[in-house]
Amino acid sequence: MRMSERGLLLVVSGPSGSGKTTVLTRLMQDRDDVFFSVSSTTRTPRPGERDGTDYNFVCAEKFEEELDAGHFLEWAEFAGNLYGTPAAPVLEAINLGKVVILDIEVRGALQVKEKYPDAVLIYLWTGSFEELERRLRRRGTEREEVLRRRLEIAMEEYKAIGEYKYKVLNYEVEEACRALNSIIVAERCLIK
Amino acid sequence: MRMSERGLLLVVSGPSGSGKTTVLTRLMQDRDDVFFSVSSTTRTPRPGERDGTDYNFVCAEKFEEELDAGHFLEWAEFAGNLYGTPAAPVLEAINLGKVVILDIEVRGALQVKEKYPDAVLIYLWTGSFEELERRLRRRGTEREEVLRRRLEIAMEEYKAIGEYKYKVLNYEVEEACRALNSIIVAERCLIK
Repeated sequence: MRMSERGLLLVVSGPSGSGKTTVLTRLMQDRDDVFFSVSSTTRTPRPGERDGTDYNFVCAEKFEEELDAGHFLEWAEFAGNLYGTPAAPVLEAINLGKVVILDIEVRGALQVKEKYPDAVLIYLWTGSFEELERRLRRRGTEREEVLRRRLEIAMEEYKAIGEYKYKVLNYEVEEACRALNSIIVAERCLIK
Repeated sequence: MRMSERGLLLVVSGPSGSGKTTVLTRLMQDRDDVFFSVSSTTRTPRPGERDGTDYNFVCAEKFEEELDAGHFLEWAEFAGNLYGTPAAPVLEAINLGKVVILDIEVRGALQVKEKYPDAVLIYLWTGSFEELERRLRRRGTEREEVLRRRLEIAMEEYKAIGEYKYKVLNYEVEEACRALNSIIVAERCLIK
């Protein structure tokens, strides 16, 4: 009698220090319908990283072949390495009614939105740049110039927030998770 | 530190038999930020009804004066009596960050949307007309022709569902309430 649930693509961005990894890990523990996408990359595996789980490790030729064939939902270069999100497994999971979560930065998110307009863009946010700075300092693992650079990137990225649909404040992990779960429920109730 | 919550106007419609009253009563019990609007009407009070609580009971002249002055978010005539939703208390409650809930039928909902485009229109639904008929029969309080008429009205109203933003399936009161609560959280996270 019950219709199967609608598949969704959530694209979650947020500055370094927003607590995104913690929140998304918790969300994945809470739900049994979440599909986390495995990115492809040309960089060499670090010790302990497994091919197909942490990343699909591919050579540059293979990556560019996939890129030219339009097989990536989004891609980017960081520190001379290429990273991309393969489209096929994502679209397949959506069709199966899964909640696909992509944890990517703003430029990647905008690429996804262009390729897949139904994508739901969510920005995880600390409430203010002052609070972001406090959290980065609390971590205490970064030199001043690295911290400054992270804040600059955050300010730059924040300008694109108008392209996002939702802003989730992460004052507290439980509450941020509750907001993400609420967004999933609400999006599934949307009349399209 | 925490920003105050954003006020919302939820307009909830649903056919007779959808369980709307039960769901909205439960929602009101669950939340302390809900504001239920009191309608104005020209009909005479029934025994036990209190002026200002169940309705604002007004004479036809007073009602028409308010109507002409544009003081109603929506209005309608039923069985020769006029009913209207006063705009001022609703807008005031929204400004105070409350969740205002209007329990009105489809035509009224569309009037509200025209006057206040930020209104969030939600249709409470049984999943199918067959299920709606089953529920109406289970109540067993109505003659066949009244039941037929209710189903006809439901089918007619359902044509306007494209004007609604959300459809909440009411298979189970708790779950429907959870969906409404999720919609409230998600709407407050929307970037506008």
